[in-house]
Amino acid sequence: MNEEMKAVIDAIHNSDRVLVTSHENPDGDALGSTLGLGLGLEKLGKEVVFYNKDGVPELLTFLPGSERIETSLEGAGNFDLAFAVDCTGTSRAGGEFEDFLKAGRCRQVVIIDHHQTNSTSADIRLLDSGSSSTGEIVYLLLKTMSVGIDEAIAKNLYTTIVSDTGSFRYSNTNPVTFRDASELVEHGVDPSEISEALFESEPLRKLRLVALVLPTLSVREGNRVASVVIDRSMFEKAGARREDTEGLVNIPRSIKGVEVAVAFREETGNGSPYWKISLRSKGDVDVARIAEHFGGGGHKKAAGCSVEGVLEEVQSKVFGCISGELK
Amino acid sequence: MNEEMKAVIDAIHNSDRVLVTSHENPDGDALGSTLGLGLGLEKLGKEVVFYNKDGVPELLTFLPGSERIETSLEGAGNFDLAFAVDCTGTSRAGGEFEDFLKAGRCRQVVIIDHHQTNSTSADIRLLDSGSSSTGEIVYLLLKTMSVGIDEAIAKNLYTTIVSDTGSFRYSNTNPVTFRDASELVEHGVDPSEISEALFESEPLRKLRLVALVLPTLSVREGNRVASVVIDRSMFEKAGARREDTEGLVNIPRSIKGVEVAVAFREETGNGSPYWKISLRSKGDVDVARIAEHFGGGGHKKAAGCSVEGVLEEVQSKVFGCISGELK
Repeated sequence: MNEEMKAVIDAIHNSDRVLVTSHENPDGDALGSTLGLGLGLEKLGKEVVFYNKDGVPELLTFLPGSERIETSLEGAGNFDLAFAVDCTGTSRAGGEFEDFLKAGRCRQVVIIDHHQTNSTSADIRLLDSGSSSTGEIVYLLLKTMSVGIDEAIAKNLYTTIVSDTGSFRYSNTNPVTFRDASELVEHGVDPSEISEALFESEPLRKLRLVALVLPTLSVREGNRVASVVIDRSMFEKAGARREDTEGLVNIPRSIKGVEVAVAFREETGNGSPYWKISLRSKGDVDVARIAEHFGGGGHKKAAGCSVEGVLEEVQSKVFGCISGELK
Repeated sequence: MNEEMKAVIDAIHNSDRVLVTSHENPDGDALGSTLGLGLGLEKLGKEVVFYNKDGVPELLTFLPGSERIETSLEGAGNFDLAFAVDCTGTSRAGGEFEDFLKAGRCRQVVIIDHHQTNSTSADIRLLDSGSSSTGEIVYLLLKTMSVGIDEAIAKNLYTTIVSDTGSFRYSNTNPVTFRDASELVEHGVDPSEISEALFESEPLRKLRLVALVLPTLSVREGNRVASVVIDRSMFEKAGARREDTEGLVNIPRSIKGVEVAVAFREETGNGSPYWKISLRSKGDVDVARIAEHFGGGGHKKAAGCSVEGVLEEVQSKVFGCISGELK
């Protein structure tokens, strides 16, 4: 057991009231880690309050305990300990939580995270960037404390893994990921039930949007670059929401031989139109370099940026830059 | 070790020349099991010939050793032992293999399979319907024989699991599935590499087909039933092949609240037009009952049938039958 793990366990033993939160716009790892940890702490006799500034997105309401997530800290009282899980810093949990900490309402703050982070905004930081999800770190913590993993905890933690690995498809998937999944399924998780909830519960409007986006699919550079366009008229026609564009860049990415996939999404800020650009790499091209060229950023395999202008100009600039990066 | 496992190991020890084959139109489990087993037997000093009547589909050419799969048994000589893997009976490997057996060219025949099967068409049958893939049974056999699992074997066996579980999403996914996956990744498999080869290598023509199919998406019965249509004009327009329709029924299936998903695909037999119908259930409806009503069959969650007639009539019959099955 490392120093940080030991410190977290000591902090838990010395606490009665515990607050658990995660980053804004929570995903499966954020909420699954919040609930898995909090339900585990309750088994140790702690009084737990679950909080997320933005609440639970419709897609994740199947998570056991999700109905207990509060969206306000008003009247929450004081806490011996607060956890900010899947957060690179306490500020990721939002302004209300930051103010709460500043007001001295939590005696100690712990961050549990698998992102590479430099934040020093907590008393203890339990970090493992080799972990596929924050949920796996939470699972190790609960096991180390001999918490009995019940079905509700297992479902939450299994969801963190499936969410953050894209169902065991991303490069963060490793032998420990599979070992943890195996154990969690033994604790009563039905993998097909979680997969169905996460991947086979699309709103009809999203499919309507995809139907409008697909005809814009185009390829260039001998199929090495593929792209789609999502403009405002499509949104209106499909009755779609912003969240429905999530993952649309995977359409051009799915084509054989494509090295760089791009999605152009029309936005309006204060008057001037601009395009939000999602970039994905399947080969050796570092798309973060392309995004940085336009003032954006990200990782080698996934990055994004915004560019002002009409579509043709924007595409010409972006495709020109990509062309220069292809070997 | 059970009786059958012992019998298979004895048969291997008593053999020098071994033929390994699998079912026609092979999928990832069929070819991955063939190659994983054959490469393992080579490590035991056996002379192995790999055979599949239909050869290797383009999608699976990434499998290590796939270039060694023969599509003819002409001049193959005689064998001490033949394996038919992922086969419910030896006939599943095709007529040439059946004739080969009848001619007494293989001293002993072993079936390894995870389907529920009643065939008695082999000397030894190593069956486990609780196994997510045939590859997992092969893996257990190789481990039991202390074969050193190298990266090539591991990639083939990992592919069998990912193929047959839909990347750990189907209900056959169990704790052993994950434990095997964990070990195979420790033997050098890169999960993202296999996933990319299997799921992110679509031909452009397939995406063009999807673009034509999506506008046909329709829902009924208060979103509980959703369907798509693939007619011949779409095929021609997209330059698509029959294999490109694989999985299109998952489009209506992916919608939230849908209990029965249907894909209608236009076919022409000898003159009279008919429709091939794929049915998927996400809820409690047994779609095999619906398929059987039209002379087809399948499982509770996935079934199919063919119905003659013009689309409107066919849809009216099929939707009528589905309506009767909805609770």
